[in-house]
Amino acid sequence: MVIVGEKINTSLKGVTEAVRARDVEFVANLAKYQAECGAHYIDVNCGTLVDEEILALPWLVETVQLAVDLPCCIDSPDPKALAAGIKIHKGRPLINSITNENGRYKEVIPLLQESGGNIIALVIDDEHGMPGTADLRIKIGNDLVKRLNADGIENGRIFIDPLVQPISSSPDKGVIVLDTIRGIAEANPAIHFMCGLSNISYGLPQRKLLNATYLSLCIMAGLDCAILDPGNKKMTANIYAAEALLNKDEYCTEYLAAFRKGLLDA
Amino acid sequence: MVIVGEKINTSLKGVTEAVRARDVEFVANLAKYQAECGAHYIDVNCGTLVDEEILALPWLVETVQLAVDLPCCIDSPDPKALAAGIKIHKGRPLINSITNENGRYKEVIPLLQESGGNIIALVIDDEHGMPGTADLRIKIGNDLVKRLNADGIENGRIFIDPLVQPISSSPDKGVIVLDTIRGIAEANPAIHFMCGLSNISYGLPQRKLLNATYLSLCIMAGLDCAILDPGNKKMTANIYAAEALLNKDEYCTEYLAAFRKGLLDA
Repeated sequence: MVIVGEKINTSLKGVTEAVRARDVEFVANLAKYQAECGAHYIDVNCGTLVDEEILALPWLVETVQLAVDLPCCIDSPDPKALAAGIKIHKGRPLINSITNENGRYKEVIPLLQESGGNIIALVIDDEHGMPGTADLRIKIGNDLVKRLNADGIENGRIFIDPLVQPISSSPDKGVIVLDTIRGIAEANPAIHFMCGLSNISYGLPQRKLLNATYLSLCIMAGLDCAILDPGNKKMTANIYAAEALLNKDEYCTEYLAAFRKGLLDA
Repeated sequence: MVIVGEKINTSLKGVTEAVRARDVEFVANLAKYQAECGAHYIDVNCGTLVDEEILALPWLVETVQLAVDLPCCIDSPDPKALAAGIKIHKGRPLINSITNENGRYKEVIPLLQESGGNIIALVIDDEHGMPGTADLRIKIGNDLVKRLNADGIENGRIFIDPLVQPISSSPDKGVIVLDTIRGIAEANPAIHFMCGLSNISYGLPQRKLLNATYLSLCIMAGLDCAILDPGNKKMTANIYAAEALLNKDEYCTEYLAAFRKGLLDA
């Protein structure tokens, strides 16, 4: 399971002030904390700072990579900000994100080709926006993979995001994502899947229970990457358990190591 | 989700002594506790008392049904003990169990036909015993369903037990059961699945984490009945969460009711 640490995001408490003040220590500590908890990428997102995102995003990338020896997930709605962040990034970033909307696709694809990075691909296109059925999401996902392949991006670099929405808004939202993952996985060997899980429980009580349970279900469907707080022991314990149960952790090696480190006590 | 309360079993601490002494209060309290926690059946199992099982099992059935208004899951390796328990049972019992072994099948099928009860059907036959692959378990399950159908038992009365074994014995044991459930469900509409989940974690630390996570995965595969301690909040909270996430609990009605009763605090 590839973990993207979600904590460096200006929509989270304290981060906006730290980024506005260019507080190196604050950002470095958040990066180190997530690295120590096992993150494989550090997400950097300052999309809420619209006026200065294009300056703040590369600063975040540089500050994170001075603090920890990890690649970033460079996360922005603005392709120009993405470009600025990617330019300063060392190694191969995870770029968040591309869609099958023509405008977005054409702006992001050169960044992906030039950087040699990996890409989070959302199942969105111009005709349907964010579609309401699994069948349409699968179709858009498959089309997007084909288009990326044709532009030289092989499946192993693509992380499909099936777009998690709250079950409180419509009770089929959980199943739609599970079906989308299974459908796209079937048609595209070696493809990856990533999502932000916590949307699933929006508006309901005991969100941690729902989020952790849903994580297990998504792993069974084929999810192999998630953006989350790697210090959230309930989530990470569920990952270790689900991978052991699904024979993705032979002889329970990782599970037992996590137990010895006290990571399963959630 | 159909819950079979597992606590009245002479392999559990204190129960042997209580059954030997015909301690009505002890057994009645265990039955009431499980009924209050939401059990749909009360399992009665005194298979360890080989010498007097045939007397103790009907006593257990009678004692439980005087205490609570629920059917029993009558659980014995000995068809004669099953017959004695079924004879005194009021309403339709769940009979545990039949297999596709000729001897066992022929002894249990008349009990099932006469009682009008439901049946737990293990994927075991004479040729393979308890087979090591999902394909063979699916074949034996499908054969057993056909045979039961031919003998007048419709799918809605059949609870297939896919036989959970420890992942510590072989890392594919978890996946074998999930594949068995999916395979048999596909071929047999309206069939039920039940299992005892706790075997999965035998020999590993943090068994509750593994058991609860595995329960969610099994529900996603199609499990709709489990034998467990209905007072184990971690397990029952996972059932509520998984059913809400999998659109088996429209508008999260049961989930929200469970939250209000404090059942999701595990």
